[in-house]
Amino acid sequence: MVVLVNGKFEPTVSVGDRGLHYGDGLFETLAVVEGRPCLWARHMKRLLRGCNRLGIPEPNPEQLIEEGLKAIARSSRGVLKLIITRGAGGRGYLPPANVEATRIIQFSAWPEYPSDLLSQGVRVRLCETRLGATPSLAGLKTLNRLEQVLARSEWDSPEFLEGVVRDTAGRVIEGTMSNLFLVAGGGLRTPDLSRCGIAGVMRELIMEIGESLGISTTQEDLTLDDIRQADGMFLSNSLIGIWPVREFMGVAYNPAVVPSPLVTAVMDRGFRFD
Amino acid sequence: MVVLVNGKFEPTVSVGDRGLHYGDGLFETLAVVEGRPCLWARHMKRLLRGCNRLGIPEPNPEQLIEEGLKAIARSSRGVLKLIITRGAGGRGYLPPANVEATRIIQFSAWPEYPSDLLSQGVRVRLCETRLGATPSLAGLKTLNRLEQVLARSEWDSPEFLEGVVRDTAGRVIEGTMSNLFLVAGGGLRTPDLSRCGIAGVMRELIMEIGESLGISTTQEDLTLDDIRQADGMFLSNSLIGIWPVREFMGVAYNPAVVPSPLVTAVMDRGFRFD
Repeated sequence: MVVLVNGKFEPTVSVGDRGLHYGDGLFETLAVVEGRPCLWARHMKRLLRGCNRLGIPEPNPEQLIEEGLKAIARSSRGVLKLIITRGAGGRGYLPPANVEATRIIQFSAWPEYPSDLLSQGVRVRLCETRLGATPSLAGLKTLNRLEQVLARSEWDSPEFLEGVVRDTAGRVIEGTMSNLFLVAGGGLRTPDLSRCGIAGVMRELIMEIGESLGISTTQEDLTLDDIRQADGMFLSNSLIGIWPVREFMGVAYNPAVVPSPLVTAVMDRGFRFD
Repeated sequence: MVVLVNGKFEPTVSVGDRGLHYGDGLFETLAVVEGRPCLWARHMKRLLRGCNRLGIPEPNPEQLIEEGLKAIARSSRGVLKLIITRGAGGRGYLPPANVEATRIIQFSAWPEYPSDLLSQGVRVRLCETRLGATPSLAGLKTLNRLEQVLARSEWDSPEFLEGVVRDTAGRVIEGTMSNLFLVAGGGLRTPDLSRCGIAGVMRELIMEIGESLGISTTQEDLTLDDIRQADGMFLSNSLIGIWPVREFMGVAYNPAVVPSPLVTAVMDRGFRFD
């Protein structure tokens, strides 16, 4: 793993960093293909929007891409994680008057998943851990991710590649590390993320590509019953692209129900620099 | 500021620490008086309980007090902050099979508050930021504290020493860094913290001391109307002990309404080692 902190190759951060004390920051996880971070502009857009919502000074995207390419160096494939924190210091929760954000750039190996997931689909389990409704943080990829850690800690069997999490009212929200789509009546349905959840970059791309193919997506409150009654189901994030689901809660789904023009376009368009 | 990380005087942590990536950890903040951390046993009890709930290996309290005293050295007064994270590594949210927790011990100066707050009371404002109901984390002092950062960032005027935060349903929960009590009908009322909020060590002590003085506390759902109709109001945490409130939302409260035997006992008992 290669790490740059504020532009320097060093694997440590100040113990006073607010990312550590409060989870006071944001992150992005990008696939690297042919030496370049995929969907760069979209990830930057989300990162800057998150900084605005939290009042963290915007990082300079040109500096980030420069440092990102430095971390990737001559590697072709891998994962680039960008962390932006509000920096160090402050009296307790109150941020210091002059904030100097911390930039952490981490390049690591591509995760080893079976190669036939796109055709075979994945098995998914239901998590007991619930997501709290936190309107001030909803949609954002913040460093406050303990709920995801607890949900992902519920199982360790490689038999299940993902778990579905609900909010405290029982609404289905997402996977622990992915967004969730249902295939139903020729269109797509995906959970509304205004109360909690992370609005994924790949999720947004899927909705756009779907629209261009005449496959529209509704964002709405969904329940486990909606999943049971769906024709099919798939998961998405920036590393996996699309994972069709073949089984969830004892119900078998046909991976081929996910429209193949959509899958093909997303797996192509989702793994390019821009 | 003096910092020990895993027993060594060094001001940095590994950039792979899960405390930084996910807020995957807990902390305690203790007053140091006459060179010793106050309410040590109670803070340890809460810390170990939190570790159990999150599945983080329990730290050794004897090692922590040894390192705490090393950080305090010859200082008499100050603030000791203990952070325990789940350590470094893991595949994404899933913690590694063999977790080695990180211990961070930080000793810093005593915060400068006006000396007459106990008699004069403090002015308190209402925050707009709402706390999400997160049952899996409720009561715990985790490193996921972005809501508190946002709430505390709403004002910077020293005129207000604290802000009151509500949950998404409008229930009053706590201050950004303190617990909240109402004085009403000869007893105390404090918010129920089963959905969100931090169950303070000083809060617990206040309820115990109150009980022994015949002043009972009910833990219940409270609204802004309950505050408006209360005889008085006070805040608590391990550093401030008790702060009577003199004004909140345009209503003046008499700081002297907080029972003085309670205040005296808490300000004495709350600032001893055990």
